[in-house]
Amino acid sequence: MADQLIIFDTTLRDGEQSPGASMTKDEKLRIARQLERLRVDVIEAGFAASSNGDFEAVKAIADAVRESTICSLARANDRDIARAAEALKGAARSRIHTFIATSELHMEKKLRMTREQVLEQAIQAVRFARNLSGDIEFSPEDGYRSDPDFLARVVEAVIKEGARTINIPDTVGYAIPELYGNFIKTLRERVPNSDQAIWSVHCHNDLGMAVANSLAGVQIGGARQIECTINGLGERAGNCSLEEVVMAVKTRRDYFGLDVNIDATQILPASRLVSQTTGFVVQPNKAVVGANAFAHASGIHQDGVLKARDTYEIMRAEDVGWSANKIVLGKLSGRNAFKQRLQELGIALESEAEVNAAFVRFKDLADRKNEIFDEDIIALVMDESVTAENEHYRLIALAQKSEMGERPHASVVFAAGAVEHRMESGGNGPVDAVLRAIELAAQSGAEMLLYSVNAITSGSTESQGEVTVRLQFGGRVVNGVGADPDIVVASAKAYLSALNKLHSKIERVAAQG
Amino acid sequence: MADQLIIFDTTLRDGEQSPGASMTKDEKLRIARQLERLRVDVIEAGFAASSNGDFEAVKAIADAVRESTICSLARANDRDIARAAEALKGAARSRIHTFIATSELHMEKKLRMTREQVLEQAIQAVRFARNLSGDIEFSPEDGYRSDPDFLARVVEAVIKEGARTINIPDTVGYAIPELYGNFIKTLRERVPNSDQAIWSVHCHNDLGMAVANSLAGVQIGGARQIECTINGLGERAGNCSLEEVVMAVKTRRDYFGLDVNIDATQILPASRLVSQTTGFVVQPNKAVVGANAFAHASGIHQDGVLKARDTYEIMRAEDVGWSANKIVLGKLSGRNAFKQRLQELGIALESEAEVNAAFVRFKDLADRKNEIFDEDIIALVMDESVTAENEHYRLIALAQKSEMGERPHASVVFAAGAVEHRMESGGNGPVDAVLRAIELAAQSGAEMLLYSVNAITSGSTESQGEVTVRLQFGGRVVNGVGADPDIVVASAKAYLSALNKLHSKIERVAAQG
Repeated sequence: MADQLIIFDTTLRDGEQSPGASMTKDEKLRIARQLERLRVDVIEAGFAASSNGDFEAVKAIADAVRESTICSLARANDRDIARAAEALKGAARSRIHTFIATSELHMEKKLRMTREQVLEQAIQAVRFARNLSGDIEFSPEDGYRSDPDFLARVVEAVIKEGARTINIPDTVGYAIPELYGNFIKTLRERVPNSDQAIWSVHCHNDLGMAVANSLAGVQIGGARQIECTINGLGERAGNCSLEEVVMAVKTRRDYFGLDVNIDATQILPASRLVSQTTGFVVQPNKAVVGANAFAHASGIHQDGVLKARDTYEIMRAEDVGWSANKIVLGKLSGRNAFKQRLQELGIALESEAEVNAAFVRFKDLADRKNEIFDEDIIALVMDESVTAENEHYRLIALAQKSEMGERPHASVVFAAGAVEHRMESGGNGPVDAVLRAIELAAQSGAEMLLYSVNAITSGSTESQGEVTVRLQFGGRVVNGVGADPDIVVASAKAYLSALNKLHSKIERVAAQG
Repeated sequence: MADQLIIFDTTLRDGEQSPGASMTKDEKLRIARQLERLRVDVIEAGFAASSNGDFEAVKAIADAVRESTICSLARANDRDIARAAEALKGAARSRIHTFIATSELHMEKKLRMTREQVLEQAIQAVRFARNLSGDIEFSPEDGYRSDPDFLARVVEAVIKEGARTINIPDTVGYAIPELYGNFIKTLRERVPNSDQAIWSVHCHNDLGMAVANSLAGVQIGGARQIECTINGLGERAGNCSLEEVVMAVKTRRDYFGLDVNIDATQILPASRLVSQTTGFVVQPNKAVVGANAFAHASGIHQDGVLKARDTYEIMRAEDVGWSANKIVLGKLSGRNAFKQRLQELGIALESEAEVNAAFVRFKDLADRKNEIFDEDIIALVMDESVTAENEHYRLIALAQKSEMGERPHASVVFAAGAVEHRMESGGNGPVDAVLRAIELAAQSGAEMLLYSVNAITSGSTESQGEVTVRLQFGGRVVNGVGADPDIVVASAKAYLSALNKLHSKIERVAAQG
């Protein structure tokens, strides 16, 4: 029988830590449900002790998801661990993931602790956690740059205390497959009780090798868990991509000889959901989930490929969720068809009132757009959840015009709590004019770091525009996302959505990389 | 002394083959000049026999670039090879790269040839090429999926005929580092005259391992040339990324012990130029060149990172061309300052008339935008080269307005050759309305595959929008790019630019993957 490879998804924890990728509770819950459909073994739902918001998100996911193990990160101290256990109470299966840095650089500069202090704290933390949960994972942060002798001592000690998974992060993305694989192999050989734990890899993509490093950790090192994120989301160059590492193991089963539980047909929906939620675009030449990854799936017809598909393709687009025949809704679709499509998309709205509100928006959109695709529905529902949850700023009306040779002009009406603001402004373009008008009235003082637009459904001139606006204020970075067939309206929505996120002041504690 | 690793860039050949990435001669020349500044050893400038346009582009690059070897691809036949040699005549150093498929699948389904026929044709081709050039590279297409015995026979024979570089492509991106490295190692051991050639790797990223596979080919296999592209541009999931593979070799010199000629500070300018030219966006979490790759470089300030940068960063942003202090031009900048900035950016305009035309556009932009960044200048010059070269369609005037609750409306005036078109249209948004108006008048019949927008200079609400429109008509796929502070105007420019590319009917022959 083939060994099982455990897929541990950390999109909602390490992915969310990426500047600008922070999500609301509802957004995290929606992604968690999609990860469950993807049949991820372990979902790292967050870092419960880092903020009240993250605690609530981990709790909501633990209460809702039944098929995957739900995990929370915790620093190696009693408070963090107790908070994680508290958030995970309602889970069918739960895991506490505790960590402390073990490299000289991190111990000295970040922790200001000696080796013996770190060792002792790791032992105490796992001992404390073990009383609260039967499933404990331990990570030595910056493990790959740690002294192997010291690292082996720490790992042996925490396994003795009951850690059941040992994860060796390449925190800074410095590893090379052969070296990383052998590092883990040697470490396992050195640790006398290594067979009492499952070994895990956690790689970052700074040198473009996160997938290969993870797989070398498995093949050479004997690890049997891979930590990864959808779209490779994560700080800096991101984490190991779930879609790439899973499809490598499936496509090259001849070499790896490992089973994974993942339902690959849910990969593309997961990729789209994460990209739409965070506003982090997926480049066209991204493996598996990029628009060009399968030439024929993006509407491009090339003779050579069609003649003999296996001459150039090693995977089938359908297998990872690219389907040629999308079900499309339109103006005449009724409430039942809409509700059924929501269910098929796995979107569980909390109440009938929410379904009704979403349906009203759907009809409004269908009046303006002939064909409604799955992506439109996701955008519509997400949009609503943002306004429902943090409705301080709300767009009421907008008008704009531009003409070559004249200065573009916009007027906007929006609510800020109980106050209604009206403002006009000129700008370099209509988008600039409307965002200036909003900022003139809102006086947020935020700095814009990024503005980007994607057509939600390519292949149609009547696509909705999905706009991402990234704002920074007081050391916090947030992404706002807005969708509308009118790109100027979408921009205003995105700006207000970002202001709403800044408005809901969530304080966070930095976690491991 | 450390071995030299040869960097062979194929952005202009394999990268350009990506659907939608086709470039004009001027665009290719501009990128080639940037590749020369980057100190790429070999520039594969195109596939001279595939079209007259590509022949002219290879020729222009061979005539202009002095520091890098200029290479043209050629199928294994006399006509292709003679055409390549002809295009390369003016080069300081030139190389002919000839290829034929050697895998059973490709020989049977694509070539419909026997093994002996393929072997014979490879020999004849290299023999013919050897009379025209002293620097011949041979690639067995789909080499990694070929029978090693047959492959060894072919390689031995072509080395005997004078091939000086042997490149083993993983055409379909199926390889795994350990296997690919050992495949090349074994092949080199089997081929008796293997030491008379430099071995090369050419990997695709379908399973996310192109960089690691290339490096295993070098480290385990003994290859000393890597074929790669800027931003990993290329068909499907793309090719090995130049920026990732080069920074891996530089950052982990302790492991690889290899020298590369690349001037890494030219990496980011090269990435931006390729992205702006092709309209292929770079995702934020892309290693080395993504907006988030170096957190502090994207304007994000995080305590932890600033305190001890090496706790989380293994490369310095400045080393790959992210500079904190950009020189910014504005309304008061004179012609000399502008011209000097063009020179510093390596943009060589052909004549004073071109400089003057660009300066007029610069002043026009500076009237509407306070700060002009390097990216704005590149966009401005590129825009001009498009209109100068293929000026069939040209935007004259545009007006649009939208208001929530009303149907957006646009009117547009544009030239198609000598004819002036005026048209009005409604649409779902102002962009939809203006593109509908253009299409109503132009009647191109093209299908839109993609619409995307990027802010050229993030960090400012007054950014220019850069719009990419991908059109398909009659089996051809083109990207049009347009930039303007007004996103609706930029969209119109992009659509007209795409129509211009469709109008200049370049017939192409498909090359190897």
